[in-house]
Amino acid sequence: MLATVGSSEKPRTGRRPGENTTRAAIADAAQHQFAELGYDRATIRGIAAEAGVDPALVVHFFGSKQRLFVSVMAPPFQPEEEMPRILAGPRAEIGRRLATFAVGQLEDPRSRRVIVGVIRAAASEPEAARMVRDLVAERMVGAIARGLGTDDARLRAELVASQIIGLVMARYVIRAEPLASRPPAALIEAVAPTLQHYLTGSLTPAEHRSRGG
Amino acid sequence: MLATVGSSEKPRTGRRPGENTTRAAIADAAQHQFAELGYDRATIRGIAAEAGVDPALVVHFFGSKQRLFVSVMAPPFQPEEEMPRILAGPRAEIGRRLATFAVGQLEDPRSRRVIVGVIRAAASEPEAARMVRDLVAERMVGAIARGLGTDDARLRAELVASQIIGLVMARYVIRAEPLASRPPAALIEAVAPTLQHYLTGSLTPAEHRSRGG
Repeated sequence: MLATVGSSEKPRTGRRPGENTTRAAIADAAQHQFAELGYDRATIRGIAAEAGVDPALVVHFFGSKQRLFVSVMAPPFQPEEEMPRILAGPRAEIGRRLATFAVGQLEDPRSRRVIVGVIRAAASEPEAARMVRDLVAERMVGAIARGLGTDDARLRAELVASQIIGLVMARYVIRAEPLASRPPAALIEAVAPTLQHYLTGSLTPAEHRSRGG
Repeated sequence: MLATVGSSEKPRTGRRPGENTTRAAIADAAQHQFAELGYDRATIRGIAAEAGVDPALVVHFFGSKQRLFVSVMAPPFQPEEEMPRILAGPRAEIGRRLATFAVGQLEDPRSRRVIVGVIRAAASEPEAARMVRDLVAERMVGAIARGLGTDDARLRAELVASQIIGLVMARYVIRAEPLASRPPAALIEAVAPTLQHYLTGSLTPAEHRSRGG
């Protein structure tokens, strides 16, 4: 359960036995507290207490609260690998593939915790919103935009992100019913045409599908 | 500037001259602080200070912080009047009419402040999320659902809300570029087909458009 905390977890020489376990316990506690309390109310002291370590050890491993957040709230997958794979398949099914991947991530409790934590943090205060814009969104939106490769790819990727963020808010944060209880397959059906539209459809009717292919 | 605070502002007999102005000043300060600080960090004391009144007067007029929030963060329009009007027109343009209305509200600084404040509050802590679910969302989603009148109308209305919430987050909270700088007309173009799909399209391909029309 304490395993994969993402790309910041590079093997280093000189690391003592037990260090990985401690780092993972801190990361786990940090993910939990950022998701539950939001960025603002989560504290290094509280995270250390939940992990059962001294606060100084949290600072030793991760630095500031901001760097801890960026480190442990990294996407629970590698966007640079996943997005090109999703975007490279048959074009007519691109929205469904991306919807299936996104809903799959949201239905996995550990991934959901990170995604909900990042979105709640972005909503709750400007510093976190800046971090999300600069770091987390950059990796996600950047990977989709590079995969699309069109002039308007960034805007398209951000429209996709807007729908996924809104789905997270409505289903997992506000928990609006019946949306919150719909099975994942039904969500994928509902959202796939939207993502297909944003990725491949015409966004400007004046030009009538200037993108072509 | 301190004028319309919405439906809670009913004329009452026995109100002294200046009372409306004071209430409006408090409501204005509350909207500002809820939107800027979020529900959690906004305080009755801080709101009173911004309005230039004694905190006791805030409690006198509005009661608790929770009741103040619900009162001043009400939708800046009457969903029960606007939604039937939007939904009653030609069916093929229903998504565009709703997108035009939603983007229009978001581009009006005073409406935007309320909408952003409500969404940020919902994201930042569970008590506010419950309030949004129970009160604010009920009026919006309820009005759309009643206007549609189908069995799955609530789910459709919530999917619409999810896209609008996500747009607010991406454009006005996270301020992702280029989405944040796109002109309103371009936003309407991009989002209208999504809302049309959620309101009138097939959400379950197994049944192949069982809704008919």
